[in-house]
Amino acid sequence: MSEEGQQSISSRDLAELLGANPWQIRKDFSYFGGFGTPGVGYKVEKLAKQINKILKLDVIHKAALVGVGNLGSVVLAYPGFRIYGFDIAAAFDTDSKKIGRKINNVMIEDASNLWMLKRRKIYIAIIAVPRDTAQETADALVKAGVKGILNFSPCYITAPRKVKVITIDIAMDLARLPYYMPAS
Amino acid sequence: MSEEGQQSISSRDLAELLGANPWQIRKDFSYFGGFGTPGVGYKVEKLAKQINKILKLDVIHKAALVGVGNLGSVVLAYPGFRIYGFDIAAAFDTDSKKIGRKINNVMIEDASNLWMLKRRKIYIAIIAVPRDTAQETADALVKAGVKGILNFSPCYITAPRKVKVITIDIAMDLARLPYYMPAS
Repeated sequence: MSEEGQQSISSRDLAELLGANPWQIRKDFSYFGGFGTPGVGYKVEKLAKQINKILKLDVIHKAALVGVGNLGSVVLAYPGFRIYGFDIAAAFDTDSKKIGRKINNVMIEDASNLWMLKRRKIYIAIIAVPRDTAQETADALVKAGVKGILNFSPCYITAPRKVKVITIDIAMDLARLPYYMPAS
Repeated sequence: MSEEGQQSISSRDLAELLGANPWQIRKDFSYFGGFGTPGVGYKVEKLAKQINKILKLDVIHKAALVGVGNLGSVVLAYPGFRIYGFDIAAAFDTDSKKIGRKINNVMIEDASNLWMLKRRKIYIAIIAVPRDTAQETADALVKAGVKGILNFSPCYITAPRKVKVITIDIAMDLARLPYYMPAS
């Protein structure tokens, strides 16, 4: 909306876009101080800024990718990370044929150098390695001071409580579809 | 739990696993008839069956993949779909070098044959094509009778109301992390 020059939006229109209730939207925002004006709604640009701040997306976050196979290559080429302020600043693999090559301007480094992430102030990592090495990769990342992990490997990984792990299971995403589909 | 031989689970333990409240769990299940016994909890196997039934995951769903690039290849090799009863029964691409090849026992077919999905009773599709052809792919799938689409292309696609579309934005998944991370 901001890009399209829209100045303001009502909680009602926002609710319709999100599939939520207007009162829920107003109530949720009220926990953070409430940014709307009755009868006018929310200033789009200000609201976006506030939400980014709440979600801690108002700063650039450097992230590292571990595993540059099929999925890792998709991650490196993915155009959407910049929108949320992410900079994929490092990529690692164990394959000597890949190490030293560049994909999307990111040099692939030797995965045995993960410990250097702390020095480079990279606290977010994306795991895209085969499932049998996912846990040891996570362990190495935690040791390197990483505080947030997005795990694409098809298995659950464990980490200390202070490290936030989000596992993406594409099969579970697919499993959300049948519920909404008419009987055929 | 079922695989590990666990017989029953309390709403309290279930809540802890899910990061939810026990009363919310009991309330939610009560909408579907309630499957628990006070003081005992839920029989694991029966509960799993009931949930699968609610989510319409108690039957085998055939699904088609469109786009066998890096991401599409990950989808074809992904081991998790079977858990939810999905069978990736067809794969399509426009690249003549890929057509006719087999990945994970699935033959890659010419994308101009999408219209045949109806005859083959495939109503679920996964889109993994470049963003500039995502919408036309969705249009072709809708025309072919598909009722549910999982979209991995980094763009939003539109479809008639009767077709459920879920778009996966991996950047948005990553964007969930900073909120939970300690200031560094």
